[in-house]
Amino acid sequence: MGINVPSVKLNDGNEMPQVGFGLWKVDNVTCADQVYEAIKVGYRLFDGACDYGNEVESGQGVARAIKDGLVKREDLFIVSKLWNSFHDPEQVEPICKKQLADWGVDYFDLYLIHFPVSLKYVSPEERYPPGWFVDGDSKVEHGKASLEQTWKAMEELKKKGLAKSIGVSNYTGALLLDLLTYATIKPATLQIEHHPYFVQKNLLKLAAQHDIKVTGYSSFGPLSFVECDMKLAEDTQKLFDHPVIKGIAEKHGKTPAQVLLRWATQRGVSVIPKSNTPEKLAENLNHMSFDLKDEEVEEISGLDRGLKFNVPTNYGIPVYVFA
Amino acid sequence: MGINVPSVKLNDGNEMPQVGFGLWKVDNVTCADQVYEAIKVGYRLFDGACDYGNEVESGQGVARAIKDGLVKREDLFIVSKLWNSFHDPEQVEPICKKQLADWGVDYFDLYLIHFPVSLKYVSPEERYPPGWFVDGDSKVEHGKASLEQTWKAMEELKKKGLAKSIGVSNYTGALLLDLLTYATIKPATLQIEHHPYFVQKNLLKLAAQHDIKVTGYSSFGPLSFVECDMKLAEDTQKLFDHPVIKGIAEKHGKTPAQVLLRWATQRGVSVIPKSNTPEKLAENLNHMSFDLKDEEVEEISGLDRGLKFNVPTNYGIPVYVFA
Repeated sequence: MGINVPSVKLNDGNEMPQVGFGLWKVDNVTCADQVYEAIKVGYRLFDGACDYGNEVESGQGVARAIKDGLVKREDLFIVSKLWNSFHDPEQVEPICKKQLADWGVDYFDLYLIHFPVSLKYVSPEERYPPGWFVDGDSKVEHGKASLEQTWKAMEELKKKGLAKSIGVSNYTGALLLDLLTYATIKPATLQIEHHPYFVQKNLLKLAAQHDIKVTGYSSFGPLSFVECDMKLAEDTQKLFDHPVIKGIAEKHGKTPAQVLLRWATQRGVSVIPKSNTPEKLAENLNHMSFDLKDEEVEEISGLDRGLKFNVPTNYGIPVYVFA
Repeated sequence: MGINVPSVKLNDGNEMPQVGFGLWKVDNVTCADQVYEAIKVGYRLFDGACDYGNEVESGQGVARAIKDGLVKREDLFIVSKLWNSFHDPEQVEPICKKQLADWGVDYFDLYLIHFPVSLKYVSPEERYPPGWFVDGDSKVEHGKASLEQTWKAMEELKKKGLAKSIGVSNYTGALLLDLLTYATIKPATLQIEHHPYFVQKNLLKLAAQHDIKVTGYSSFGPLSFVECDMKLAEDTQKLFDHPVIKGIAEKHGKTPAQVLLRWATQRGVSVIPKSNTPEKLAENLNHMSFDLKDEEVEEISGLDRGLKFNVPTNYGIPVYVFA
């Protein structure tokens, strides 16, 4: 049933589908249905996070699909992420367990440090998901946990089987190099913003050197961020309309979305697009049915502007973690 | 004697001149004379490093100036940096002492971690300065020290008086945030590449938030790197020829160099240009004799392209620390 998606083998021996469904900004009202539909189309990887605020609903979609016999738990690859305000080592296991309970599963296939930023703890009873602000409006307070302390607590999750694989997100090369000096378990994956305006050749090389698989989010570039009313994204040429992308799409008889996803997967980067329509869901999942020529991959990479949208200050959040 | 340069007060109470002389790429043959001449013109801060390979000669220039009565040691502000291959905590004090001996002084005013990258130790007897490669040709090997371990060893240097202040260089926002979770002594300064093509608004804000003073290197942008035969720099419009910079320079009757330096110092960033001629030495040191209008500062900042030249791969060095 559905489309068969190739997997990549992680450095800990686990296998991860190369295409998944990203749950960021998926509306709570439709979330369970969207997850259910995506499973029907053939999606097996779901990329969630505490911060997306829809883990309960995502889990409901999964439960219904399992109940209806579409899949078994072990056919799925469920990803979640540790939010910034749970970096204190003693908070990592409790929040992971709460997230597992929200999903209604007893392990994550992959659990990631969401951002390399420790924020002050806010209890889930007080506010959940807590977001960036301590008090719900404008004050950000950083936490005291070092990334090393948090990573060591992540390693415990893997040892206890709460997460089959662990990894990081939004890390840069220097952060990854530092992590590698103290990790006893290497990250299995690195999840990063990745599109033709933000190509990050060196970071991909570093990850490859250490056999860390990369997942790219926001594969369509500014589009993801226009939904967030981000001015920078609104002011940037949409990749679907870019003559280079359109030209290559026409040549192959594919959509710009498929070209953008194929550019990523041919660079060895897994992808997690989302979509609201069954046609596009299938189109995205099925994007590996053709190959770009090496020159085409290079031409698309040539659009690089070092342009990262997912920077807290671009949303008006006063956290100065990225340039 | 010479030009009087304002100082900034560091978070540990020490004072640092806002303009200094950068020793990167200063030729060994002329180095002692250049340092001596710079002292004559009024320079008090000298920014050196193990990696520049000219600490002995820099120290000779200083010694001659002191002997001739131009300055006393305590009038000077001598900066040096810990090279990547000395990040192992047990190597930090020995190499700092060797560098002090090379300079012929018994303390540094400021000692910085040069790059957030640990490389495998190479003994000074074997090769000095060691550079990026383990074996002198093509193989880079990373070290095992975490940045936390190295920083703790830096803190010891300050406690022992070998460095009056300590800081970091080439750190990004995320690295600085992580450092702040484990530092018992905060960095006094952050030294970064800084010019109108690489403006880093958020990093400056983060540093200001934590009262960490920023020093910018390569204030003239690509120019520094053309000397290194870097193709990216050769292919980038020179800032001295840029119509925005030239226009503002003409309006103020100043040189483009002075405009670029003033743009930095008005943003609160100290500068460390170098020059081979006494006229330019004075011109650079004296660049604070005028003010840019706020709109001019903004117009220059508008040239930002997120363009960092000082990336190892731009020199053909296979170290993937920056994007």
